[in-house]
Amino acid sequence: MNKITGLIAATFAAYHEDGAVNLEIIPAIVEKMIADGLSGVFICGTNGEGPNLTIEERMAIAEAYVKAAGKRILVLVHVGHSSIAECRKLAAHAEKIGADAISSVAAFYFKPGSVSNLVKSMAQIASAAPNTPFYYYNIPALTGVAMDMIEFLRQAEKQIPTLAGIKYTAATLHEYHACVNYKNGKFDILFGYDEMLLPALAVGAKGAIGSTYTFAAPLYLKVMKLYEEGMSEEAAATQLHAVNMVRCLVKYPPIPAQRAIMKMEGFELGTCRLPLEPLNEKETADFKASLEEIDFFNVVKESRQLID
Amino acid sequence: MNKITGLIAATFAAYHEDGAVNLEIIPAIVEKMIADGLSGVFICGTNGEGPNLTIEERMAIAEAYVKAAGKRILVLVHVGHSSIAECRKLAAHAEKIGADAISSVAAFYFKPGSVSNLVKSMAQIASAAPNTPFYYYNIPALTGVAMDMIEFLRQAEKQIPTLAGIKYTAATLHEYHACVNYKNGKFDILFGYDEMLLPALAVGAKGAIGSTYTFAAPLYLKVMKLYEEGMSEEAAATQLHAVNMVRCLVKYPPIPAQRAIMKMEGFELGTCRLPLEPLNEKETADFKASLEEIDFFNVVKESRQLID
Amino acid sequence: MNKITGLIAATFAAYHEDGAVNLEIIPAIVEKMIADGLSGVFICGTNGEGPNLTIEERMAIAEAYVKAAGKRILVLVHVGHSSIAECRKLAAHAEKIGADAISSVAAFYFKPGSVSNLVKSMAQIASAAPNTPFYYYNIPALTGVAMDMIEFLRQAEKQIPTLAGIKYTAATLHEYHACVNYKNGKFDILFGYDEMLLPALAVGAKGAIGSTYTFAAPLYLKVMKLYEEGMSEEAAATQLHAVNMVRCLVKYPPIPAQRAIMKMEGFELGTCRLPLEPLNEKETADFKASLEEIDFFNVVKESRQLID
Amino acid sequence: MNKITGLIAATFAAYHEDGAVNLEIIPAIVEKMIADGLSGVFICGTNGEGPNLTIEERMAIAEAYVKAAGKRILVLVHVGHSSIAECRKLAAHAEKIGADAISSVAAFYFKPGSVSNLVKSMAQIASAAPNTPFYYYNIPALTGVAMDMIEFLRQAEKQIPTLAGIKYTAATLHEYHACVNYKNGKFDILFGYDEMLLPALAVGAKGAIGSTYTFAAPLYLKVMKLYEEGMSEEAAATQLHAVNMVRCLVKYPPIPAQRAIMKMEGFELGTCRLPLEPLNEKETADFKASLEEIDFFNVVKESRQLID
Repeated sequence: MNKITGLIAATFAAYHEDGAVNLEIIPAIVEKMIADGLSGVFICGTNGEGPNLTIEERMAIAEAYVKAAGKRILVLVHVGHSSIAECRKLAAHAEKIGADAISSVAAFYFKPGSVSNLVKSMAQIASAAPNTPFYYYNIPALTGVAMDMIEFLRQAEKQIPTLAGIKYTAATLHEYHACVNYKNGKFDILFGYDEMLLPALAVGAKGAIGSTYTFAAPLYLKVMKLYEEGMSEEAAATQLHAVNMVRCLVKYPPIPAQRAIMKMEGFELGTCRLPLEPLNEKETADFKASLEEIDFFNVVKESRQLID
Repeated sequence: MNKITGLIAATFAAYHEDGAVNLEIIPAIVEKMIADGLSGVFICGTNGEGPNLTIEERMAIAEAYVKAAGKRILVLVHVGHSSIAECRKLAAHAEKIGADAISSVAAFYFKPGSVSNLVKSMAQIASAAPNTPFYYYNIPALTGVAMDMIEFLRQAEKQIPTLAGIKYTAATLHEYHACVNYKNGKFDILFGYDEMLLPALAVGAKGAIGSTYTFAAPLYLKVMKLYEEGMSEEAAATQLHAVNMVRCLVKYPPIPAQRAIMKMEGFELGTCRLPLEPLNEKETADFKASLEEIDFFNVVKESRQLID
Repeated sequence: MNKITGLIAATFAAYHEDGAVNLEIIPAIVEKMIADGLSGVFICGTNGEGPNLTIEERMAIAEAYVKAAGKRILVLVHVGHSSIAECRKLAAHAEKIGADAISSVAAFYFKPGSVSNLVKSMAQIASAAPNTPFYYYNIPALTGVAMDMIEFLRQAEKQIPTLAGIKYTAATLHEYHACVNYKNGKFDILFGYDEMLLPALAVGAKGAIGSTYTFAAPLYLKVMKLYEEGMSEEAAATQLHAVNMVRCLVKYPPIPAQRAIMKMEGFELGTCRLPLEPLNEKETADFKASLEEIDFFNVVKESRQLID
Repeated sequence: MNKITGLIAATFAAYHEDGAVNLEIIPAIVEKMIADGLSGVFICGTNGEGPNLTIEERMAIAEAYVKAAGKRILVLVHVGHSSIAECRKLAAHAEKIGADAISSVAAFYFKPGSVSNLVKSMAQIASAAPNTPFYYYNIPALTGVAMDMIEFLRQAEKQIPTLAGIKYTAATLHEYHACVNYKNGKFDILFGYDEMLLPALAVGAKGAIGSTYTFAAPLYLKVMKLYEEGMSEEAAATQLHAVNMVRCLVKYPPIPAQRAIMKMEGFELGTCRLPLEPLNEKETADFKASLEEIDFFNVVKESRQLID
């Protein structure tokens, strides 16, 4: 697989009223992603509530996305789980159904204690899908596992034949910078911190995975375009809209708040699963008002026109 | 169910050479637990590598323990998982096979953000086993979820009809003290920090769950006996042996080190699963030597004679 | 110096209305401490706002306490500071004025990175008062420095000729237990977690330093008396009053809340220094009501009668 | 004062062989800073070991710098201390001697518990130097105080008449981006994370304060020049040298390692104070070899030529 360029949306889980997974909505989500100019989707990750789902549900969601995408955009399947045995089931399944890549967080109950241990763990997962590119999903804030990623690449390139790169979700851009340049750019280091996309571009990011790309991709694509055209100040002014939106967002639990935005955009995703809890009516109204105050919806709309 | 008194061993997972779960060894483990004077076993928890196992493996282990125990000692089944949907499967299964109680840690990927959220989450799990006592497994050091346990009891007693108590694995004995006395001892608060058993007795502990009870129960039963007989200094001197053993233990990853002790005692449990890694030969030899230096094995043996 | 037995009160700073240190109130505080049966005072520590004071203020307070105590109770002077050069000034001064002991926390801006580094740092401080017993003040929750205290004793006994022991302010009673028994009790390990005093007695504590002893010493002295007389259940029931009081306390910033209790007891200590902020009127009233609800003031009064 | 542009070097403390502060070397340091193209120096901060020094030493150092600078470059004096009373002494002194600005970290023993409390604390410090610009020094990794900096600006602009801006030492560039744009750039937000200078430029940084500017300023000035000229890729390639140097650095305690570089550059700064410890000979040799391996010294030298 070539390196991924552009944006990958980390899509949300969708549920019916009875709490069952809503697979029927997936084609509509995929069409929106295509219309918004995304390069692919990352499914069953943090944003997709992978850890809240059963193995069977995760497999069903993966199948629905692969089918809906029909190779028009990439489908990256997150297979992370506290149990590597379960990860391997998910990895083998993803390969079987033709996913474009798999990815896994570090185990998050028992946590890897060293880079070497982390690499061994990831190798055991990746080997269950021997023909599918593997991305390590580095997200220390959620897993509590913060390892040196250059050292990870050094050891993993020997032990994981399918290693494609890293989904890098951390603010430490100096390390990101080093990873992007490891062995002249041997690996694909996808940036995962949406509100810092522009600074990541400045140190070499070409592709990114994030949750807010699900509903605000045009804004970020405009940032990328302006940056490529050397319009630094305009790029910074555009990225600032994303920063402001995220500042509104983080006043609430971020996943439920983003699900509320999806509903404002016409996507009824149902009630997220415990321990996540949806915003209540008042919170939703306040949140919407705060987004309108910074003119968020119009800004995205206008960016979309520019991109088209 | 009455309150649990005495010691519950948090037993270890056992694997065959090919990595498959070893169910055949379970009867022998149960007989050892009975011979050692334990009141029950706690299975598929931290020590039992629950988070490293598949759902099917956890169910098979639970069945094997319930069958082997034959109601001679209690079987408490840990059903915690990052996904509450999976927890509910495990809980329903535990009830069906006749487990004496179930228990769950807080979700450990997405973490409960408030006591209220934690209680809702636990209620959803407990309700899948409506006739089986439920213990919340409080272990902040591993889950990163540190909530006020008195507030938990206050809210949970209204929402979890089967609430039996808490498996309390933390050093904060003042809170433990308050929980033991909540509503004149309405709930069963089992202590989970073996190396602090004696101080827990001083504030009212009557039952405890722990990993080192799997191989050193006689030592701790002696502590309990001496304490009950008012022999405080002797109890402290005996508990000190446990403290010293644990000090040897924590120089290594604790679960692999304890598995090494089980092997020294004749129980071949196989290789633990990643990200856990077994002690290597040198580490095992050094560890054994350090235990012999503090005369650990003889101390346990002599305690056993005293208890008989 | 012999080992310290009984209770040492970590007294509070006192200020005049203009914010200047109030030295005039110190004799009255000392008399209360003597009347309450305390063995000594620990001054300019956490509770005494040492880190909020200037070097000159700390010296003036130390002089006032030593003078007021007149060798009737012990005066332990905390000399900890981010700068070891300042610590040494305070240590030399404490020795000069005849303090009974000095004590220091680990440096708290640049933090010691190893036991060896911590010991070197403490040795440099202690050597400025070569004839005064030195206690290392271990309080990981505030300094962020959590080292193995047995290893500390092992290295410090060689490098700090004046090492008397440790003020041990942490909930890890197994380590405390090991320290108390290090080399058959060579060092004086004073316990610093008031709400866990009883469990600490169970593993060998004979002396303790704490902030709540400033206003509730009789309650704790009763716990110690009951425990010594083998009345375990009564001791636990008495300690429970302290646990309940601390549960009320920790709903507020603990030092300001305790200063509010001192005021309820007739000691006007003035306004604590930023970043500490006093409880406002409503908080004070609510806090007082919560203490009355658990009958705290009467419980202390009755304990006093029993002790007399 | 206008906003600061360019680079401010956070200089190192210097000591004589007997451990006393070396003031005599300060003019030579200042001349190097001027020769290297720096805009100013930041003294007695983290890098300058402020918290390891006495108040008197800090005042003497400040005087020496102000005198040596002779208004040719800016002198920013760090006045942070655990005691606000001591901060105020340092602030008043800095104003008296004609420092260009003062700055303070949050109190680091008792830590501010809210933005409001932090602002009150900083206002109390700043008011002791009513005619000198004040920068809040935000460095969560060292102080443990991580507050919302936009909220800080909102409250501080009302309470601190001398507020000039923030020395922002954190990797969270989205927040930095928001601060730079707060009220159309009302405040001067100096960036403090050298290894992320380029990405900070991309979101609007114009000035920066850092320790590695003391010995590698030309490299970073080249980054700034290339970035301004729209040569993004060359800027990233140049910044990568800094990233690689910092990766060598962080294998050792960073301040001692940087002091070792200063010695390689001919500046004998003496032995840092405990708890900091100098690199030993082997470490110094290994470190130097690792810097040579990435051709660090030549890269800086060549950058210097380009800048001249």
